[in-house]
Amino acid sequence: MTTVAAYAAPAAKAPLERTTIERRPVGENDVLIEIKFAGICHSDIHQAREGWGEAMFPMVPGHEIAGIVTEAGPGVTKFAVGDRVGVGCMVDSCRECENCKAGLEQYCTQGNVGTYNALDKNGEPTYGGYSTHIVVDEAFTVRIPDGLALDEAAPLLCAGITTYSPLKHWNAGPGKKVAILGMGGLGHMGVKIAHALGAEVTVLSQSLRKKDDGLKLGADHYYATSDPKTFEELRGSFDLILSTVSAPLDLDAFLSLLRMDGAFVNVGAPEEPVSLNLFSVIGGRKTLAGSGIGGIQETQEMLDFCAEHGFGAEIELISAAEINEAYERVLSSDVRYRFVIDTATI
Amino acid sequence: MTTVAAYAAPAAKAPLERTTIERRPVGENDVLIEIKFAGICHSDIHQAREGWGEAMFPMVPGHEIAGIVTEAGPGVTKFAVGDRVGVGCMVDSCRECENCKAGLEQYCTQGNVGTYNALDKNGEPTYGGYSTHIVVDEAFTVRIPDGLALDEAAPLLCAGITTYSPLKHWNAGPGKKVAILGMGGLGHMGVKIAHALGAEVTVLSQSLRKKDDGLKLGADHYYATSDPKTFEELRGSFDLILSTVSAPLDLDAFLSLLRMDGAFVNVGAPEEPVSLNLFSVIGGRKTLAGSGIGGIQETQEMLDFCAEHGFGAEIELISAAEINEAYERVLSSDVRYRFVIDTATI
Repeated sequence: MTTVAAYAAPAAKAPLERTTIERRPVGENDVLIEIKFAGICHSDIHQAREGWGEAMFPMVPGHEIAGIVTEAGPGVTKFAVGDRVGVGCMVDSCRECENCKAGLEQYCTQGNVGTYNALDKNGEPTYGGYSTHIVVDEAFTVRIPDGLALDEAAPLLCAGITTYSPLKHWNAGPGKKVAILGMGGLGHMGVKIAHALGAEVTVLSQSLRKKDDGLKLGADHYYATSDPKTFEELRGSFDLILSTVSAPLDLDAFLSLLRMDGAFVNVGAPEEPVSLNLFSVIGGRKTLAGSGIGGIQETQEMLDFCAEHGFGAEIELISAAEINEAYERVLSSDVRYRFVIDTATI
Repeated sequence: MTTVAAYAAPAAKAPLERTTIERRPVGENDVLIEIKFAGICHSDIHQAREGWGEAMFPMVPGHEIAGIVTEAGPGVTKFAVGDRVGVGCMVDSCRECENCKAGLEQYCTQGNVGTYNALDKNGEPTYGGYSTHIVVDEAFTVRIPDGLALDEAAPLLCAGITTYSPLKHWNAGPGKKVAILGMGGLGHMGVKIAHALGAEVTVLSQSLRKKDDGLKLGADHYYATSDPKTFEELRGSFDLILSTVSAPLDLDAFLSLLRMDGAFVNVGAPEEPVSLNLFSVIGGRKTLAGSGIGGIQETQEMLDFCAEHGFGAEIELISAAEINEAYERVLSSDVRYRFVIDTATI
């Protein structure tokens, strides 16, 4: 066991504070990663504040991890000391179910092991990326291509793959009209990725406050959802709406923006149930769907795709001491577009 | 104009009574159909009682029409006097939008013209099948194959196509596990069609009351949704659940019965909005979708499919005087499985 520094929430809704945690010894197939950067995801806040249900404390959040391999177990074949690597939302899965075998570890029928706020196969709590080091099985570690800066790559491990996977699955590409709902951490990656995939991209954001950014990142159009005219003008427009918002939505209104056979795909998740008139999906044979992160192989594909297209996330680099303030700013949508913790400051 | 006998609701929620209505002259592309049988669909009741919103009265319901062509306009090419034909839920559409051109008239972007409770292109109200005759454009008329009895064919025009279309669209077939939710007029057709398509079919019904029938119609398994153990035992089982019920449902519970990438498709439509936890679709990348009837060409395909497999609907033939009583029995799920009006009794 190795004692390492971390930032943890000691209890639900409590401010995060510096502490130390134990990391397991480097096992046969493990890599020890010196974490360089960790992104702050809205779901870190949901979990630290028990918005999604009871959680485990102390909690070290962080599932957007970028760093350098500093030690590799004897059985490790994919990575060597010095490699630039990333870890996302999960650090293990059953590896035997049909989903795991299909590279869809995120949908492991036994439940994957979350990077934090979870118990690993030995029943030990997992601790996330707001920390100086982490030990992870190489099977759940991905390579960060040289073309990507580590700080801008960190948010790709959640915000990148969470948008890339459904955009690919629902065939965003040339000839397709794709709307990205929400222009935050996930949304801004959705814009970049959908544009790079060749789709015609529209941002649907509460206001036009971030319009210039949206167009710069690749959006073709930008509309405010606070303007009722948006819903008249865009009625029946989209093949795909990717919703990155975790606030409650008027789903019926958004479903009316889809074309025949269109899909409204949720990657954001409100804490409360939503209301829906089923006629909204019956007319036009529409789909309301959801998607959660992506598999390990697909995460690697996404990183390679981003490197090839020359973009990471748009970030605001902060010190560990600023985490609690950053949480408040995330909750008030005051971040462009992802806070990334410089873990050297922990 | 021709005066013909019909059963109509004079006002919302009023009992249906015998009356006469005017049918338009047989136009260039019209056929005059002597209606032999008309099915009673749950949506007739929804509309006659304004459960789905304001409606037009007097209302002659009926969109499951089977009869014989007795006159054909000079431009008619598909049908001749004496032909056995059917008319379903729509009698016209714009015929120019991309959906109409794709044979998806049911999703006409201008809105199709309903067989009743609608205005036709001349602004005249449409009247449905609880009547002795109807005049319909041949483009919205389909042929009933000789192998199908007209009374058992009538319900196929709505209950048949409404289940056939989504079962085909969501690839029900060999190797697929399909659940049919609800064992009523639509549900019993869903069972027959899904079985004929080669899927492994499970009925999910409130009770086991109709189990023998379900198995006889082609179901492989039959479960009661009133039994909580059903939800434990079938968790993660189905590729497709076709919901034919129009009562409010615990959608989250039913979504938990889907496998990875599974779809819960609504063809029934509750009058009230439903509640949904979006995590129910995010986990397992699931789909909540809807489907409405089917296109004209697909309706013909469905009739041919049913004839080829040797089945129509299971019906209870009634006289016109029994319509109001039949409505009450539909509402209490006391019909096996579709009431069909012998229009000779009007």
